[in-house]
Order: sequence, then C-alpha cells, then structure tokens
Amino acid sequence: MTEIKLFCPATIANLSCGFDVLGLCLDNAGDEMIVRKVEQKGVRITKIIGADLPLETDKNVAGVAALAMLATLEVDCGFEIEIYKHIKAGSGIGSSAASAAGAVFGINELLGKPYSRKDLVQFAMQGEKLASGNAHADNVAPALLGGFTLVRSYHPLDIIRIDSPEELFATVVHPQIELKTSDARSVLKQTVSLKSAIMQWGNVGGLIAGLYTKDYDLIGRSLHDEIVEPLRSVLIPGFDLIKQTALENGALGSGISGSGPSIFALSRGKNTADQIAKAMSDVYEKMNLPYEIHVSKINPDGVRII
Amino acid sequence: MTEIKLFCPATIANLSCGFDVLGLCLDNAGDEMIVRKVEQKGVRITKIIGADLPLETDKNVAGVAALAMLATLEVDCGFEIEIYKHIKAGSGIGSSAASAAGAVFGINELLGKPYSRKDLVQFAMQGEKLASGNAHADNVAPALLGGFTLVRSYHPLDIIRIDSPEELFATVVHPQIELKTSDARSVLKQTVSLKSAIMQWGNVGGLIAGLYTKDYDLIGRSLHDEIVEPLRSVLIPGFDLIKQTALENGALGSGISGSGPSIFALSRGKNTADQIAKAMSDVYEKMNLPYEIHVSKINPDGVRII
Repeated sequence: MTEIKLFCPATIANLSCGFDVLGLCLDNAGDEMIVRKVEQKGVRITKIIGADLPLETDKNVAGVAALAMLATLEVDCGFEIEIYKHIKAGSGIGSSAASAAGAVFGINELLGKPYSRKDLVQFAMQGEKLASGNAHADNVAPALLGGFTLVRSYHPLDIIRIDSPEELFATVVHPQIELKTSDARSVLKQTVSLKSAIMQWGNVGGLIAGLYTKDYDLIGRSLHDEIVEPLRSVLIPGFDLIKQTALENGALGSGISGSGPSIFALSRGKNTADQIAKAMSDVYEKMNLPYEIHVSKINPDGVRII
Repeated sequence: MTEIKLFCPATIANLSCGFDVLGLCLDNAGDEMIVRKVEQKGVRITKIIGADLPLETDKNVAGVAALAMLATLEVDCGFEIEIYKHIKAGSGIGSSAASAAGAVFGINELLGKPYSRKDLVQFAMQGEKLASGNAHADNVAPALLGGFTLVRSYHPLDIIRIDSPEELFATVVHPQIELKTSDARSVLKQTVSLKSAIMQWGNVGGLIAGLYTKDYDLIGRSLHDEIVEPLRSVLIPGFDLIKQTALENGALGSGISGSGPSIFALSRGKNTADQIAKAMSDVYEKMNLPYEIHVSKINPDGVRII
C-alpha cells in the first residue's frame, strides 16, 4: 500500500465542564486527506483544496505533525499529503486537529503501524502547537481515538478513551464570524474561585459517570460550565438564545465548542438532534447571520480509511 | 420491629483530587448504634458510650439529623438512640457522619422505609451542619450508600454512587493529634489557579473512569491533589513521610482523609494494604506519636443492620 485516503473528523473540545481536558469525535463533519508514500525523503504538502493554508511543510499543521512523528523513526522514504478541507479554520470544531491527526495516522498506516493510535496523539499535538501556540490534546485525542477522550494529564501525557452511549448525537452550529483562539483565550482569568472549581470538577465527574453508565440525564445535568462559558459566550453572537433554544428543543446540554464560535448541543436520538438543528438555524436566520450546521452521531473510531 | 442495631461506617472524603465531592465507605471501622421505636414522641439520645458528646437531641448530630427527617413525616411515635462510638471525633474519617447516617437509616427502617438511602442523605447532612457549620455530603453520602460517591451538585443535591473495584483496599492511619476542621479550612485559599483547577478536574475524571473500568493503575495516577494537600499537609505531623512510605510499599495513591489528620492510602489487595499499615505504623512508632490504624475493603453497602 503506497497511498491512503482518509476521513479526518471534526471534534468538539471542552464540552462545558471539561475545559482543556474533554473532547468528542464527530462522525460526518470532517476533512479528507490523501497520504502517499514516495521515494523522495521528507514530507511535502502537495495540494490543499478548500482553504487558504500554507503549503510549506513546517508552516502547515499536518506537515509539522508528520515531521514530529518521522523524527522518531528511521524510514527510507518520504510522504506527500493532499488536504481537502471541509472544516473551516477558526470554527472551533478542531480544523487544525483534523489535519494533524490525519497526517500522522496516514503515515503510520503506510509504515505498517509502528505506533498505536494513542501513541500518535503526542505527534499530532505538535501540529496544534503550530496552530495555537499550545500543544493541546483535547481535539487531536478524540480525532485519533474516536468516542470521548479525557486528557487526565499532560506531564506525563495520559489520555483515557471513553465509549459514547450509542444514542448520543451532537448538533453543532458555526456562526460565520471570526473569533481568534488568542482572543478567546485572552478573556479567561488565570485564577478561579475555589467554589466554582469544585462545582466544575463535580460536573466533570458526573459527565464521566454518565458516559460509563449511559445515563443521558446525568450527562445533561453535568454539561454545565461555571468558569469559561460566562466569559467567552459574550464573544459569540446569539449564544444565550441558541443555547436556550437547544434546551427548549430537548437538548441534554449545550455550550461552546472548543474556543468557539461554534455552539454544540448533545441530545438523545437523531430526531431530537435534527429538531435542535432546525431551531438553531431559525435563530441565526432571524438574526441574518450566516452559519453552518452539523448533526452527527458520536464517531466511535476517529480518523478512518475511506 | 421496634429496635434495630446498626453498624455505622467510617468514611474517607475528598480522596485527593475530589475535594468536597468524592468519598468512600469503609467496612470494618465504624460505630454501633441502637435505634428504638417508642410511644413517646420526639427523639432522645439515651446513651453515648466511647465519647464525650452531648445527649441533648438538638446538640447531637444524630439527634439533629433525626429531627430533620421526622420534620418531613407524620408519625405517632418517637425514637430513642444509643450510640457506641468507636470513631474518634476529629479523626477525619467521618465520625459525625456515621452518627448522622445511622440515626436516619435506623428510623427509616423502623418506619418501613418511607425514604430511599439516597433520600436520607439530605437529612444526615443536617447533622454535618451542626458538627462543622457546613451541610456537606461527602461523608454522609458514602456512609449511607456505600462504595464511592460523587456529590455532583448541591443545588439541587445530586449524588452518584459508584461501585468499588473488588480488590481495592484502604489503609487509614490516624495520628492522635487534634486538628480542628475550622483550622483545616482556614488554611485554604478561596481562589485557585486555573491551571491547577484543570489538573484537578482531569484527575477527578481519571479517578471516576478508573473506578468504572476497574483500572487500578489509573485510579492510582489520578489520586493527586494540586490544590488542598499542599496547604493542609503541613498541619499533619509526618505527612510527607507517611505518604512516601505508603507509595514505596505499593500504595496506588495516598493523601489526607477528609480534613485530616488521618492519612489514607488505597491499594490493590489486602496484603499490600496490610504491608502499608505496618510501614505507616513504623513511621509513627519512630516518631513516638500515638496513632490508630485501619485496614479495610471498601464497604459496598453503607450503614447496615447487625
């Protein structure tokens, strides 16, 4: 096998209570990528369709992730990468993570899987570092592993994958505004009250318990963010109304996807997720704000060969 | 049935990362209590053996918890309570919680179980409020429900019970010093860094995941406290050495039990727990500090009839 075509999924990080530690993998929103093994050593980005991103390997998240991985291996070949972007950069559903995850997954497959999917997370994180200055794992981990992921620790890196309850669906609406990750981070406070922190880790515990026991109500009750959402949501037009609309239409919970501006809702069953999508759309239609919307089951596998 | 004899278990709250939200139930450390249905209405504490505690109903945690429960019911009888204390007050293993939990459990049984065990938590919390000024649930919940408990939220009260992996054992050493809960609380800071809070909720998530998947190593890796232990441990003589000794002797993790001064270690298997107990004892023997020590499996049931 010298060429592989991949689906590189979008992801939702943070999930309300789980700032910087939780994420989930979407199933029908994502990029495509072709990775090709070639004689000429090194990594080349040969094509990018759908986005205005740098072709230079060391300025491209897929390239940087690939180089980080190849620096740990002795290989006598090189790789070409074609990227077909469908996830918009800056959407808050893991656009850079999809590319970084796809690159390392594809190369790993073509090399006969020297690494496990979990091993690959550390390399994909280097792409995230290029994209945001921070080698975070809360998007690349679910993109590579599927389901839900918990980044328990960075030093050492310790990632726990958790199956999603089967009937869980995500609705994600992306208002077409620009919200830089750096701006979304600048509104955060570097200290939080102990009281809020306790409520937050109670909810993280509740969400994890809800996932293991497939307790949809508990998942919903735990999708609450004491700390980040109150600060960031003001940067997202219509956030309160979108969230309220999602809850009124049966969402288990709703919050900011990653650092925004996308807003997610989780629900039980596709019908409810579709209804929420329609209601969210109506809100942005009335506001005359362009948007994209996705309804997806939780992807159990992560990046996959197509 | 007009009289019931109970075992009222000791409990370990906080469990390193889970400050104010997590707790577990011990199996062979605890008080005994007799609850008797009588004609004369009201609640009377008729005997307390093993501790110098008030007999006045409204000054006794068992009495206050019982009154809180009976205020919600119409009953044409009263109750007498005898308390046989084995858990020392101020030990950090839920002495007041054991009495409060036992009182409401016993009365509930004698009344034909109008309430579930989970319902009883709110009444037992009123005993805790008398004891510490704070109606906390992280000891009364495991005392009533057994296993591990997570207090996801107080408003509304939302408690999740989690089974313990079967081979998990606790070792708890209680250095015989006085450490007032108020002093243990006064060293806490009311704000924490966002970075520490994120590490803490990553560990809470990891601990809950470890319990559901019976992943003893993950449980151990998650038993880490960024926030409270560094501040409180200085109040406990020999804390660092006891913890280090526990880890060197095979503990999965170790930390402060509740607000101290007791120190707990969790381990896989009774042999390891016994070995840790011996090693902890040696430390306090050499320091010439009186201590009590307990080795216990996790109690799956909570308060029980004996």
